[in-house]
Amino acid sequence: MPILCVIGDGQLARMMQTAAIELGQSVRVLASSLDASAAQVAADVVLGDYTNLDELRAVTAGSTAVTFDHEHVPNEHLETLIAEGINVQPRPEALINAQDKLVMRTRLKELGAPVPPFAAIESIEDAEKFWNAVEGRVCLKARRGGYDGKGVWFPVSFDELKDLTQELLANGTPLMAEEKVNLVRELSAMVSRRPSGEVKAWPVVESIQKDGICWFAIAPAPGLKEELRAEAERVAIKTAEVLGVTGNLAVELFETPEGIFVNELAMRPHNTGHWTQNGCVTDQFEQHVRAVLDMPLGSTETLQEWTVMANVLGAPEDPEMPMPERMVEVWKRFPDAKIHFYGKGHRPGRKIGHVNMTGAGDVEELRRNGELAAHFLVHAEWKDQ
Amino acid sequence: MPILCVIGDGQLARMMQTAAIELGQSVRVLASSLDASAAQVAADVVLGDYTNLDELRAVTAGSTAVTFDHEHVPNEHLETLIAEGINVQPRPEALINAQDKLVMRTRLKELGAPVPPFAAIESIEDAEKFWNAVEGRVCLKARRGGYDGKGVWFPVSFDELKDLTQELLANGTPLMAEEKVNLVRELSAMVSRRPSGEVKAWPVVESIQKDGICWFAIAPAPGLKEELRAEAERVAIKTAEVLGVTGNLAVELFETPEGIFVNELAMRPHNTGHWTQNGCVTDQFEQHVRAVLDMPLGSTETLQEWTVMANVLGAPEDPEMPMPERMVEVWKRFPDAKIHFYGKGHRPGRKIGHVNMTGAGDVEELRRNGELAAHFLVHAEWKDQ
Ligand SMILES: Nc1ncnc2c1ncn2[C@@H]1O[C@H](COP(=O)(O)OP(=O)(O)OP(=O)(O)O)[C@@H](O)[C@H]1O
Ligand SMILES: Nc1ncnc2c1ncn2[C@@H]1O[C@H](COP(=O)(O)OP(=O)(O)OP(=O)(O)O)[C@@H](O)[C@H]1O
Repeated sequence: MPILCVIGDGQLARMMQTAAIELGQSVRVLASSLDASAAQVAADVVLGDYTNLDELRAVTAGSTAVTFDHEHVPNEHLETLIAEGINVQPRPEALINAQDKLVMRTRLKELGAPVPPFAAIESIEDAEKFWNAVEGRVCLKARRGGYDGKGVWFPVSFDELKDLTQELLANGTPLMAEEKVNLVRELSAMVSRRPSGEVKAWPVVESIQKDGICWFAIAPAPGLKEELRAEAERVAIKTAEVLGVTGNLAVELFETPEGIFVNELAMRPHNTGHWTQNGCVTDQFEQHVRAVLDMPLGSTETLQEWTVMANVLGAPEDPEMPMPERMVEVWKRFPDAKIHFYGKGHRPGRKIGHVNMTGAGDVEELRRNGELAAHFLVHAEWKDQ
Repeated sequence: MPILCVIGDGQLARMMQTAAIELGQSVRVLASSLDASAAQVAADVVLGDYTNLDELRAVTAGSTAVTFDHEHVPNEHLETLIAEGINVQPRPEALINAQDKLVMRTRLKELGAPVPPFAAIESIEDAEKFWNAVEGRVCLKARRGGYDGKGVWFPVSFDELKDLTQELLANGTPLMAEEKVNLVRELSAMVSRRPSGEVKAWPVVESIQKDGICWFAIAPAPGLKEELRAEAERVAIKTAEVLGVTGNLAVELFETPEGIFVNELAMRPHNTGHWTQNGCVTDQFEQHVRAVLDMPLGSTETLQEWTVMANVLGAPEDPEMPMPERMVEVWKRFPDAKIHFYGKGHRPGRKIGHVNMTGAGDVEELRRNGELAAHFLVHAEWKDQ
């Protein structure tokens, strides 16, 4: 059986392990500690640092393919591993577009994909020029390392933009700016692609954020105009093909009155794809494993009219009621809630699990039920009572 | 999070681990070796012998509940563990009915459940009496330890029965006999039950055997008369309740022109329930975990009209084509085949995995496709070409 090496020890690696087990495999995980989410449930755990080339060499030796649960491995190390014969999927040429927001936008613009107007910000002059070009509708972003809304700023005056720019450049944060769009909502278009070319797309979903963190995914995106749906899917497929992405690609999109715009790429299983575990013939973890091993992809058909995924985000305080009792209460009220936990301890705002709810009919009710269930799991109380 | 201890290291324990991971847990497995099916994918593996009380004590210490992937743990050890405060599910009083075919039949008859005429066989005289009572339609069975058709004999003459009885009693095999029924087909009725009482039933399935080994399960059983379906379900629920079964109970049944008869009980996830992994809202592994932890049970609704499970049974010889390539060929032809492997090496006739196929319409075509896929995975050739 193939040995799939996963760099990273979070919930994405953990859920790849679930999928791998059923395929007769077991992932080899490079983990930072034995109690990390994926390390808890993998038999083959190597402790090490993903920024250390020798430790990367050790964990990837003899593997059939190497993949990731985050995009923070230095690309020069990946280049070295590839030169030494390791099968890295996706490749650094593709990954760079998920690592650097400016590189990605430049590339997507070349391809004709819809991105808001943007510019590199390397000086106060750049900032001023862009502020004027978009008439103050500026979203400033760190080019690298942002996540869950960290690294994104909306200055309300040129002075604020100037101060921010000065401060961030001074502490060495490479910056870019883009036009602040009129957000109707956020969408996510996910596909998976094999090295040998096959691509399969899941339905486009609506993703609802709260404080910069994914809160719900609703599949398929309710009321999405067919032309926008088709364009989102087309953009995702084309992006995967042109950038040579292998494994999963999530294209986070803005829906605006002027159409859709690409916001962000992720080249791995993605939070907006967790719904597929209970909503699709092939879930994103199995598909990612199949794709990076260059095996034929499975059907992305849905099993029910709607699936809602609600993230379980750590409450400000961890309630006294033990977690198993909270699960019992949730299942008493919603016996069909599919609860997924990552084996992570409590921390306010931390993603510790998600709940999938599948059904037909009233999608807003399904979303509300998902919200109630996810809320109970961290607050030990019903939001509606 | 609860610690679920599983005694046994086969594929059933392995697939409990898959379910447990998603629930934020990880089973603790008592395994005979580190490369056993479940031990390969569990982080918490204790090596030991399930017939050794001290080793059972060591692995079960501190667990929330203890359950099984087979029924071979000596009940006296389980009694001791329970006396020492360990939460064993199911209990020995229930388990004995899955261990001893005579005890089970005696008990089920008392309950009014349909069993063929049977008798204990402790002497040649018993054998002769039974032979005459059922006019030679005798099925002789070892009371304990049989599996996959081993321990079942159909003597065609009284002399053969006499010789068999003599030989088996002499080497210490406790025996029983029952009437050989007119088998139309075999069915399986599965339920899950919590210690606190809740019971949920899955649809009754047809199970097709080959050389005493489960070959296919077809869910729901095609063309099953509603009265038989309802009776099968009733028998399974009542059996679970009256025997106090906790966790899953599979009731293997004979369908005959005279109605249904119970053949066998299993108190754990069962081969005829593997289809639920891709065919039901709640699969049998998740349900078993929830049930033995006394958590509310999930919906047993089906996701599609039909699900077929085809066992992947080791071919006489292991073909040269590597397994991943065989998987590729199967997925090329049947991209929606859900392949499950157990991490087991090749051995003729050995259960090494199963394939689930889900769909609507022509169930016989689905079964054939399942057969083709499972066959290819071990023979590296298409049965129809
Ligand atoms: N150009 C824009 N116009 C309007 N709103 C924006 C724009 N860019 C980002 N936002 C808002 O800020 C949020 C965070 O932005 P972004 O997704 O780029 O950050 P991130 O930290 O990379 O997030 P993540 O990694 O979670 O996707 C978005 O979800 C969106 O609500
Ligand atoms: N009374 C009977 N009449 C006719 N056929 C029978 C009878 N009992 C058993 N058989 C046949 O023999 C097969 C094996 O019997 P049984 O299920 O009792 O054995 P086993 O070894 O306990 O099998 P397993 O553990 O796989 O269920 C059955 O599947 C059935 O085909």
